[in-house]
Amino acid sequence: MTRKKQGIQPAIVLIEPQLAENIGACARAMLNFGYSDLRLVNPRDGWPQPHAKTLSAGALDHFTPEVFDSFDAAVEDLHFILATTARTREMTKPIYSPHSASEKASEYKNLEQKTGYIFGCERTGLRNEEIAKCQGIITIETNADFSSMNLAQAVLLIIYQHFLAHKDEDLETSLFMGLKALEDNKYPTRKDLNTFVERLIEELDERHFFRTQEIKPIMERNIHNIFANYDLTDQELRTLHGIVSALTGKKGRKKAP
Amino acid sequence: MTRKKQGIQPAIVLIEPQLAENIGACARAMLNFGYSDLRLVNPRDGWPQPHAKTLSAGALDHFTPEVFDSFDAAVEDLHFILATTARTREMTKPIYSPHSASEKASEYKNLEQKTGYIFGCERTGLRNEEIAKCQGIITIETNADFSSMNLAQAVLLIIYQHFLAHKDEDLETSLFMGLKALEDNKYPTRKDLNTFVERLIEELDERHFFRTQEIKPIMERNIHNIFANYDLTDQELRTLHGIVSALTGKKGRKKAP
Repeated sequence: MTRKKQGIQPAIVLIEPQLAENIGACARAMLNFGYSDLRLVNPRDGWPQPHAKTLSAGALDHFTPEVFDSFDAAVEDLHFILATTARTREMTKPIYSPHSASEKASEYKNLEQKTGYIFGCERTGLRNEEIAKCQGIITIETNADFSSMNLAQAVLLIIYQHFLAHKDEDLETSLFMGLKALEDNKYPTRKDLNTFVERLIEELDERHFFRTQEIKPIMERNIHNIFANYDLTDQELRTLHGIVSALTGKKGRKKAP
Repeated sequence: MTRKKQGIQPAIVLIEPQLAENIGACARAMLNFGYSDLRLVNPRDGWPQPHAKTLSAGALDHFTPEVFDSFDAAVEDLHFILATTARTREMTKPIYSPHSASEKASEYKNLEQKTGYIFGCERTGLRNEEIAKCQGIITIETNADFSSMNLAQAVLLIIYQHFLAHKDEDLETSLFMGLKALEDNKYPTRKDLNTFVERLIEELDERHFFRTQEIKPIMERNIHNIFANYDLTDQELRTLHGIVSALTGKKGRKKAP
């Protein structure tokens, strides 16, 4: 299902990953955004790794990474590959941020061509020979004094930007599902809102809230402003009416038992 | 150094975090982007936790999280707080993406006011009472079929968007010029807002507003929600205090001539 939704997925290629935790966390992060094309090149502790499965929180029940024995084999079907590295090298290469990389990846995707994001091993990163084979570098801008990111977290940031740049293809997202919950919460007409505010002002006036007649129009405007700015729902407006009634003792209720 | 670089930092507030790993990974992710205002509310296994330190890859040698015994205490000095939750609730609240949240946070930052991103515990997330006290919800749009994100990864995505939105601080863009008009309109701290809402609830309780003890917590939550959602200014909050005083006859003023 995820492949269908995302169209052509990016591949995430981990070169010689050392820690099962990171492979699992990476798989989880990928599936969070609907991706499942994970490729492992010579994982240090072999494959499969039960611990990685545990750390994937179920993601590795949904898909199985492909394991390769060389960088070249892992990337051979890809069209646009980017090396993730924080370091500057002695090579001249285009440098992308996660955001600009995702935009460039779109150009390939529009041609039905596949992008791969390549990550080196936790301790030493990518080798110069590997970087040289990539079309560009992705650098995640970080705090210069504490720049070393966790591998799975770096993967997450990059695929999230990719997801953001590509998600609009199929807008049946959970975000908008969430807003449906709001549908039952109707908003009052401006007339209903005005009725409330006028009522409030009247009650205040009865209680000598407005010190002078000069200041009254300004205060009234401020009170209108307070309640107008906010998208009160019908239900909330009823609550406010109830609050005013209670505070003014006009509709005091029996004490709760 | 990071504080200077980032100006006013966002606070990351973890409510009852369960796993030391997540606290450590969260600290590491924060410091990767120069942030160090980490607040823990009742961490399940107490504090400090040696395992969290290990997992922070050195970040927790650079800063120490503050530990609080309640939600209210942890957020009281903050001005704009957002609840991170994937779930739809029975409350009407503004919904932000990490990106739109970071832009809204900029408005506060330009007034030298502080944003807090609030995260619930790994298993159950935030409580409705806690969400009600936030000015909005952040939802990270994910794969609807596999939406549960790791806590530290959710923190990372949100602070990374915050970082991206704020790193060019020195670029005093015309966008922000428009907001200067707001400069006199400071926003209240969450403590000040809370004081108002608690006062209102007390007045209502005295007047038997809550019909039953069962319904009281739900009504209280709704009242918190009404006032938390809206960006009340300091001045507006003073006006609301004045309104309550007038309506309850506690500080009645002389009738305007």
